[in-house]
Amino acid sequence: MHRPTFALLATLLAVAPAAAQQSPPPPVSHFTLENGLELVVIPDRRAPVVTHMVWYRTGAADDPAGQSGVAHFLEHLMFKGTAKYPAGTIESAVNELGGQINAFTTADVTVYFETVPPDALGQMMDIEADRMRNLVLPEEVIEAERSVVLDERRQRVESQPGTILAEQVAATLFQNHPYRVPVIGWANEIEALSREDALSFYGQHYAPNNALVIVAGDVDPETVRQMAENTYGSVERGPELPPRQRMQEPPTQASRTVTLRDARVSLPSFTRNWVVPSYRLAEEGEGEALDVLSAILSAGPQSRLYQALVVKAGIAAQAGASYDGSAFDYGRFAFYGVPRPGTTIEALEAAVTAEVDAIIANGISEAELERVKNRFIRSTIFAQDDQVNMAQTYGLWLTTDRSISDVAEWTDRIRAVTADDVKAVAAKYLRPASAVTGYLLTPAEEKTP
Amino acid sequence: MHRPTFALLATLLAVAPAAAQQSPPPPVSHFTLENGLELVVIPDRRAPVVTHMVWYRTGAADDPAGQSGVAHFLEHLMFKGTAKYPAGTIESAVNELGGQINAFTTADVTVYFETVPPDALGQMMDIEADRMRNLVLPEEVIEAERSVVLDERRQRVESQPGTILAEQVAATLFQNHPYRVPVIGWANEIEALSREDALSFYGQHYAPNNALVIVAGDVDPETVRQMAENTYGSVERGPELPPRQRMQEPPTQASRTVTLRDARVSLPSFTRNWVVPSYRLAEEGEGEALDVLSAILSAGPQSRLYQALVVKAGIAAQAGASYDGSAFDYGRFAFYGVPRPGTTIEALEAAVTAEVDAIIANGISEAELERVKNRFIRSTIFAQDDQVNMAQTYGLWLTTDRSISDVAEWTDRIRAVTADDVKAVAAKYLRPASAVTGYLLTPAEEKTP
Repeated sequence: MHRPTFALLATLLAVAPAAAQQSPPPPVSHFTLENGLELVVIPDRRAPVVTHMVWYRTGAADDPAGQSGVAHFLEHLMFKGTAKYPAGTIESAVNELGGQINAFTTADVTVYFETVPPDALGQMMDIEADRMRNLVLPEEVIEAERSVVLDERRQRVESQPGTILAEQVAATLFQNHPYRVPVIGWANEIEALSREDALSFYGQHYAPNNALVIVAGDVDPETVRQMAENTYGSVERGPELPPRQRMQEPPTQASRTVTLRDARVSLPSFTRNWVVPSYRLAEEGEGEALDVLSAILSAGPQSRLYQALVVKAGIAAQAGASYDGSAFDYGRFAFYGVPRPGTTIEALEAAVTAEVDAIIANGISEAELERVKNRFIRSTIFAQDDQVNMAQTYGLWLTTDRSISDVAEWTDRIRAVTADDVKAVAAKYLRPASAVTGYLLTPAEEKTP
Repeated sequence: MHRPTFALLATLLAVAPAAAQQSPPPPVSHFTLENGLELVVIPDRRAPVVTHMVWYRTGAADDPAGQSGVAHFLEHLMFKGTAKYPAGTIESAVNELGGQINAFTTADVTVYFETVPPDALGQMMDIEADRMRNLVLPEEVIEAERSVVLDERRQRVESQPGTILAEQVAATLFQNHPYRVPVIGWANEIEALSREDALSFYGQHYAPNNALVIVAGDVDPETVRQMAENTYGSVERGPELPPRQRMQEPPTQASRTVTLRDARVSLPSFTRNWVVPSYRLAEEGEGEALDVLSAILSAGPQSRLYQALVVKAGIAAQAGASYDGSAFDYGRFAFYGVPRPGTTIEALEAAVTAEVDAIIANGISEAELERVKNRFIRSTIFAQDDQVNMAQTYGLWLTTDRSISDVAEWTDRIRAVTADDVKAVAAKYLRPASAVTGYLLTPAEEKTP
């Protein structure tokens, strides 16, 4: 299996709300089968291809305590086959069609998807419907797949100082909520994951009434509904799940730093992070204002951090900001910077802070606001070209309690953001007293912590 | 109820292994009733008084995820009475006898104790045996007691910047293990604790086969055994509990800081902390070597930090070190320092680090080692004077898988520590790369983080 990395997907998901909106919205259909399975059909007739995605409303933040990594481990095991589709037959069926099959796990969702010719959609649905409840997991595949996951962790985390640091920053930023635990899991807990752990998670979370199917492509909604009835329709409803109530963060009044020195680091860098509201839990308009703030600081060559630090002062090789409001619970706002040789990391950090302070003190100009809004609106038009991205946006929004019309209305909500809104969220959320700053340094780097 | 604070008790427990050993050992009796209740009797005939302690092998680190504070909440509720001893009668019975009754909760244990005249021991046993399984918790006491605990949290944590910082340092130091969560609980989770949560914890953990009774005082072991049979002996055995397997810490390669600026701070200070082995899990001799290291740095006016920083350089108002090896899982080693006005916190921190580096590089002298060992041995003799402390030492050691003979042999093990052992544990555990440093600052303090 060729699977996208977590880091890549995290980025993809992070930018999706800003990059994949529809304007004008396509005639999207949305319906629910009797067993509780929710379906969304997004017609896209430009090419004879269809994207089929199954979104389970469960992810790493639902791993039981001490079993970190089980949601992701189960994602791997889902390719081990059923009685009807034994291991390997799913991939080869898709490959023979010239299609693609893949999966990913985030803290909030586990997603399986195929891109295939439209006449193979029924078969894809049959496969996904079958492995929704009928997964066969002989004991011998467990140990082998655990080794695969541990290898994946070694390659993607332990061999990459930036990812090690990102894990430690998350574990420091979130004091109580499970977003503190890496999606792939801590190595010692992955080692202890058993067949029973995986099957218990599967039995609890994999069911039509905990899933959302997105179909985007050259298909007609009524045909899709019929196919869905014939395949998913016969899957028995699973147990009713309690509301997804994860642990909440205590209020934080202490700023924190995390410093990793590693011989494999060539350029030092820093990230400054805050827990901020996600779109789902933000007050009206705050998610949009945080998106605009991040774009004013960081999107494109006219953005403040690029102009001030890379172009004018020339002290940064890179500098930027990001807002990820797509999570089910908390969002994250971050800055990052890589100093140019000859500049200290402290000097760059101070310069980035000064740019934020300037927005908190003086706000932003109407010209900047217009430029950034236009940029968002253009990007939503471009994003319609990417079928997988489009399907992903709907999946992400609908699994975070937003609606089809929210997707369509997002550009209007971005248009409504005022300069004062942007200044207000900067002042409210980017307080130095609650920041967590990560430093990635060479072993010899001068730095206080 | 007058209850000792967590912070005080944490300190008490932290120094107990170093301060309360017996030399020569008293003729301690140790036996187990049929229902699994373990008893220890420590004769101490200097005064007509007896200390009776019930140690439940459960504490805040056993709180279910999202129910932080339930072990401590239950400790409060245990004073709400039974059918036989309604609320208030326990305290008034003890008070009439001129005795004392109290309780405390740590991450690992919940302890109830009375100090009374010897002829009241049977009644104390009857009370504790009764509330071990027969607690009556009407719904109306729950809300009231939750408010009491929230008040306690406001007074002991939120109104004390040093305690707020200590909570955030613990939440940063421990990335996965429940020692990261405060014993009293996070406020938002205390607010949600229900009668069912408390009763479920009670039903699971409060039983003779999960408890240890320590009786120290003017009593004879055979009489105590008879009283115990007549009281505790009739309490039904509880469910068999699985091994106490808490989540483990992932390896840490990043140093971290936590900075709290607060207007209520008058003198800035810092603490530098490491996760190190507890006595229970340390390799042979390492717990003792860490105790000796901490004493060489910090115990008394001849200690290195006091001499170097308070007396000679004159840059510290206070400076010290501590090792707490008494926990069930991980231990903690820490330094702290308060600079004298005119000295920066960075300068003091660097000076403390230099003292540690000197031990790692050059070790310690035989004269220092002897002085510290004699100090430990003297303190164990003095500690025999304190009946509660003595009872507490046995309780603590026996609930961390150590034996009666371990208590007696501790001074011999301290005598066996070599200068090389001390140098070795300093080099092995006090690595800058894995430290978590907390800074408590005035709002205006100059400090990078």
